[in-house]
Amino acid sequence: MLTREQVLVKKIKEWTGSSYIGDDCAVLADGKLVSSDTLVEGTHFRLDFTNWRQLGWKSCAVNLSDIAAMAGRPRYLTVALTLPAACPDLEQSLEQFYLGFTQCARAFGAEIVGGDLTVGPHFVVNVTAIGESHESGLLLRSGAQPGDVVVVTGTFGSSAAGLELLLQGDSASSLEGREELLLAHLEPQPRLAEALALVRLVGSRGALMDASDGLADALWQIAEQSQVDIEVELEAIPRSTVMSSFAQASGVNPYQWALYGGEDYELVATISADDWLKAQSLAGESFPFKKIGVVLASPPAPAVGELEGERVRLLASGESSNTFSGVVNLSNCFKHF
Amino acid sequence: MLTREQVLVKKIKEWTGSSYIGDDCAVLADGKLVSSDTLVEGTHFRLDFTNWRQLGWKSCAVNLSDIAAMAGRPRYLTVALTLPAACPDLEQSLEQFYLGFTQCARAFGAEIVGGDLTVGPHFVVNVTAIGESHESGLLLRSGAQPGDVVVVTGTFGSSAAGLELLLQGDSASSLEGREELLLAHLEPQPRLAEALALVRLVGSRGALMDASDGLADALWQIAEQSQVDIEVELEAIPRSTVMSSFAQASGVNPYQWALYGGEDYELVATISADDWLKAQSLAGESFPFKKIGVVLASPPAPAVGELEGERVRLLASGESSNTFSGVVNLSNCFKHF
Repeated sequence: MLTREQVLVKKIKEWTGSSYIGDDCAVLADGKLVSSDTLVEGTHFRLDFTNWRQLGWKSCAVNLSDIAAMAGRPRYLTVALTLPAACPDLEQSLEQFYLGFTQCARAFGAEIVGGDLTVGPHFVVNVTAIGESHESGLLLRSGAQPGDVVVVTGTFGSSAAGLELLLQGDSASSLEGREELLLAHLEPQPRLAEALALVRLVGSRGALMDASDGLADALWQIAEQSQVDIEVELEAIPRSTVMSSFAQASGVNPYQWALYGGEDYELVATISADDWLKAQSLAGESFPFKKIGVVLASPPAPAVGELEGERVRLLASGESSNTFSGVVNLSNCFKHF
Repeated sequence: MLTREQVLVKKIKEWTGSSYIGDDCAVLADGKLVSSDTLVEGTHFRLDFTNWRQLGWKSCAVNLSDIAAMAGRPRYLTVALTLPAACPDLEQSLEQFYLGFTQCARAFGAEIVGGDLTVGPHFVVNVTAIGESHESGLLLRSGAQPGDVVVVTGTFGSSAAGLELLLQGDSASSLEGREELLLAHLEPQPRLAEALALVRLVGSRGALMDASDGLADALWQIAEQSQVDIEVELEAIPRSTVMSSFAQASGVNPYQWALYGGEDYELVATISADDWLKAQSLAGESFPFKKIGVVLASPPAPAVGELEGERVRLLASGESSNTFSGVVNLSNCFKHF
């Protein structure tokens, strides 16, 4: 089952006749990368959960993550804000917002070049990021090939756990390690250095995207756009100990958050088996990816009525059965749309 | 008196340390032009006044107008939409929106390369336009010099008149020529051909912006950023007959709409007296600008407490006195912010 957003994006490609739509960024004729993302109050953030500096940081980071997802270098950012007319402490709030935004932009070599300010009934942040393709190559969602190894950065599920912490409020205020989960949700780190390490190793031979809509969605998007199948070892998906124990304390299977929680701005890539061998001879620091699965040839012509999710299979190894094994179920995704 | 938006934009330049902010577009290192504009339901449009195709056209046109305001060529557009979850006939509405948007983009040589879809409590359209500087030159707001001639395209006040027609509803439904005013408001034409004719004639020697926030605001922005004074002959400001008669029938001085109404996406430029002479030897078709005033040297150091608007003086010629003569009063501007 495609999500409503995926159905609409397909239609928009038809209506506009645009050949650029469908990856994390559009690739322009001169190799520039362009991406646009919107954060809406109440849908993507709550001002009782985040402060304005963190909101500025995150608004920047999620857009830089789209440049990382093409293995590019971010250069320019525009920031268009829609603000309620009666916003209290507007000037102080905006100063904090731009402080956080500028901190994140500078930390990753980008700068704000323009934007727009306008009044509206709700607070909306729209950011457009412009970057440059790396001279070593460009990595798209569609580049996976049978025999590739599936690799990821970081850990999964921590952002969803951080959001749950905020939703539980005081009742979870004594959790040890809560700061790690809150930061994962409120101040994500775009994986630009990791993307550059990857593209230097593999050039254009592989597939890449970020897991902003969840690991399961990222795996499915790569499999679908590359016309391959993917098998993932559930137990190989990196998770933080704090996330797993807080999930269990909250009555949630940690794999729910790791696979479907979303907003982990980690990278998901497939690289050739040869490149994976080369990567293992490097120190972990210079190739900060972990293997979670493999790419398989897709059987010819899927049976009518086959679920799109069947392209991605989740395997529980050993004797431990796991309710999350089987094909990915995209309707489990936490979707804003 | 600076508007609230102007004050905030100044602060944002400080907070971000960005040297790019302050013109219609940012000019990137490679000469590319970038601009971002937001249209908010209830602030910038009402779905009982516009249809979705017109909204798509206008969302595109106002962004292309920012590229025209730098005498550039538009190339790429991103469209980020925030849509209410319970939007009726969503798919049909979006199809009409993208139809209008794509029509406008193609008519002026640009294409949609990406965007974002998200859910929010109100409908918000954010567009980022990317263009290229013209090989003949780049025209900024800051390029006006004493002795220059102030020239404009098109007519002023028609968009405000069109909005008033919509607000009056049935009571104005029999007005002759109403279609002209409605189109000026709902389907503005970005003045890209006019901007190219200008830059071919003058290169980088002059000043240019669009009058999206009103003619008075555009004149003041050019005067302020160029550190010059401007004198305009009120009677020389091009107005349509239908606009003037509808204004009078509505009890409004037509100069209120022409100077302060806003949303006339016409160009306002200053060019040297020599270039103006050259332009007059061309046929009107190939230089579609009319003279409305002159640029004067600014007296040294304005007196403390002088109003910013005093940089622009409006002269009523002959015996007809006009209540709009005198310095421009920016607080008369119809401002969304």
